[in-house]
Amino acid sequence: MSAKIYFTPGPSQLYPTFKRHLEEALEQDVPSISHRGTAFQEIYKHTVNALKEVLGLPDNYKVFFLGSATEAFERIIKNLSDTNSFHFVQGSFSKRFYEYSLAAGRDAKSLEAPYGEGHDISQANIPPATELVCFTHNETSSGVATPLENIYAVRRQLPEAIIAVDGVSSLPHPAIDYSKIDTAFFSVQKCFGLPAGLGVWLVNDRALEKARQLQAKGHRLGPHHELPELELKGDAYQTPATPNVLYLYLLGKICEDMLQTGLDIVRKDIDTKSTLIYDFIKNSKSFDIAVQNPSLRSKTVIVANTKKPASEINKALAPHGFVIASGYGLYKNSQIRIANFPAHDIASVKALIEHMQ
Amino acid sequence: MSAKIYFTPGPSQLYPTFKRHLEEALEQDVPSISHRGTAFQEIYKHTVNALKEVLGLPDNYKVFFLGSATEAFERIIKNLSDTNSFHFVQGSFSKRFYEYSLAAGRDAKSLEAPYGEGHDISQANIPPATELVCFTHNETSSGVATPLENIYAVRRQLPEAIIAVDGVSSLPHPAIDYSKIDTAFFSVQKCFGLPAGLGVWLVNDRALEKARQLQAKGHRLGPHHELPELELKGDAYQTPATPNVLYLYLLGKICEDMLQTGLDIVRKDIDTKSTLIYDFIKNSKSFDIAVQNPSLRSKTVIVANTKKPASEINKALAPHGFVIASGYGLYKNSQIRIANFPAHDIASVKALIEHMQ
Repeated sequence: MSAKIYFTPGPSQLYPTFKRHLEEALEQDVPSISHRGTAFQEIYKHTVNALKEVLGLPDNYKVFFLGSATEAFERIIKNLSDTNSFHFVQGSFSKRFYEYSLAAGRDAKSLEAPYGEGHDISQANIPPATELVCFTHNETSSGVATPLENIYAVRRQLPEAIIAVDGVSSLPHPAIDYSKIDTAFFSVQKCFGLPAGLGVWLVNDRALEKARQLQAKGHRLGPHHELPELELKGDAYQTPATPNVLYLYLLGKICEDMLQTGLDIVRKDIDTKSTLIYDFIKNSKSFDIAVQNPSLRSKTVIVANTKKPASEINKALAPHGFVIASGYGLYKNSQIRIANFPAHDIASVKALIEHMQ
Repeated sequence: MSAKIYFTPGPSQLYPTFKRHLEEALEQDVPSISHRGTAFQEIYKHTVNALKEVLGLPDNYKVFFLGSATEAFERIIKNLSDTNSFHFVQGSFSKRFYEYSLAAGRDAKSLEAPYGEGHDISQANIPPATELVCFTHNETSSGVATPLENIYAVRRQLPEAIIAVDGVSSLPHPAIDYSKIDTAFFSVQKCFGLPAGLGVWLVNDRALEKARQLQAKGHRLGPHHELPELELKGDAYQTPATPNVLYLYLLGKICEDMLQTGLDIVRKDIDTKSTLIYDFIKNSKSFDIAVQNPSLRSKTVIVANTKKPASEINKALAPHGFVIASGYGLYKNSQIRIANFPAHDIASVKALIEHMQ
């Protein structure tokens, strides 16, 4: 790998142990083994168990593998909603989740926060018959994070609804109480420091039961990657289609590393680094914190308003080996985004900040 | 990589240059670059162009990337059929294509050949209003290959229908006349010698137009990976969701290698090796060729009936470093499968045969 450090919000910096695990995987022929053999089943089992431990996932959850987190939008809508869904929208990715539901023919409703702002849950007006409520824990475009208490409040309000959480660019940082949600998902190129190409979907027994009920009613859940088939194969430590065996193996190894460090430390390090970055932005003459409300500021994707366009900032950072991201969509020139993932160590965050002065 | 050689029909042996290209990719930070930046667009462009040259794909085709070839089953059915499809079934994978169409609510018909046999096209009785005809060029389970002439005959018979070809475990070996089909797909862990985790979908202008017409009629094509959105993003050398950037890069590099060798030689080598393997099986006392009709025998996935179960044969081959596959599904014990991909050189095929005596 080059000497560059990528503070981009995914694809991003590879986990420091990535290359070593990759070399071991090649030594062991992981890319060549059969996805129907016992060696693969052992990898599957190891990765799922390590990931459940990293996330603190209760026993009533199962873990499935998809092509991307975007695929999870469709799987959740088609497998866990009969007619409707409700979406808390706070940027481009939460909006896309909502649009997928509309495109799938659901009666989808949304509460859209102004860019850079969050939601007043008490004003949400979620229809009482809502089946599926979708949150984006960490909005990768705007840098707005949803307080977990908002999610739990909706759970209390609508105990029958399935609660889905997009944790794409924050998991495993938020210590979610998984008994208060039903499904979540992420992609491995964010906080897990892997290349892109694998989505991970966490589903509890209630959600699995809902999919079975919809199927019994004659609903078309897939056919591709429909939940009952993912479950059937997953129970045998396999997948319905040939999966990305190599990344699945590497995810397990990086989970092992995180467990060895300790999740408390992984989370505390992210908190420490996010304080460093936000403090720098607050005191800087070139940048302002984009998310006004401190309780809504993402710890893992930090967004700042900038006078100079991101391209110029990157040009100035290039000789020092740092790469950050421009703002998303309409905010391409007026914002920058800095990822703060477990692969970024405190020293490199300090060095980045120094060169952004 | 270990000293083993995998003659399994995918995941299989990695392409001999795989490790070098992987190292270069890491040197260039390919896994960390943004999928919305110009460096990615250059990779996309290079891979698509190299692949089009490898396959001899005409200008009216576009190339898209999916999570797997199995995903392509669903994409083809949902994007290229309004109400019906017809499937030539000659094993487990062609059957699954058919079952996906039924599960998607299509009026799907099939002509199922007995295991190890092919189809008499003149007996097919394809309804004249059939919109989508699905062929599996190379059935990875049974080792039956479809003569290209069969596909072209159906084209003449039903010039209005969309013709889809599953080339998962044979492309780029068959020199398909792409003007006589409309769409095809494969996965990279077969003949391209990569790890699993990327499906490739080839689509011509007629098929793209059909998807647009279905969408205009109010059809729900996706929402995930629907063809008009794949096209929109693809025209900008991007993908709708974050793709497997690393494998996409590696695919382009391996296509370059194949072009340097020359596709004539790549194909001729497969022919030569398949003759060696079939001749060995024919003359062996332990094995019989599973596909009786010589014109239907796959060149890339060679299936033999065996008296000893595949597990015992693999046990005997293990000390010599060779791995072959058992039969598929019901034929697990009574058949073996030997992959013959570009990553397998003639010397190793000869050595394999020697140790199977």
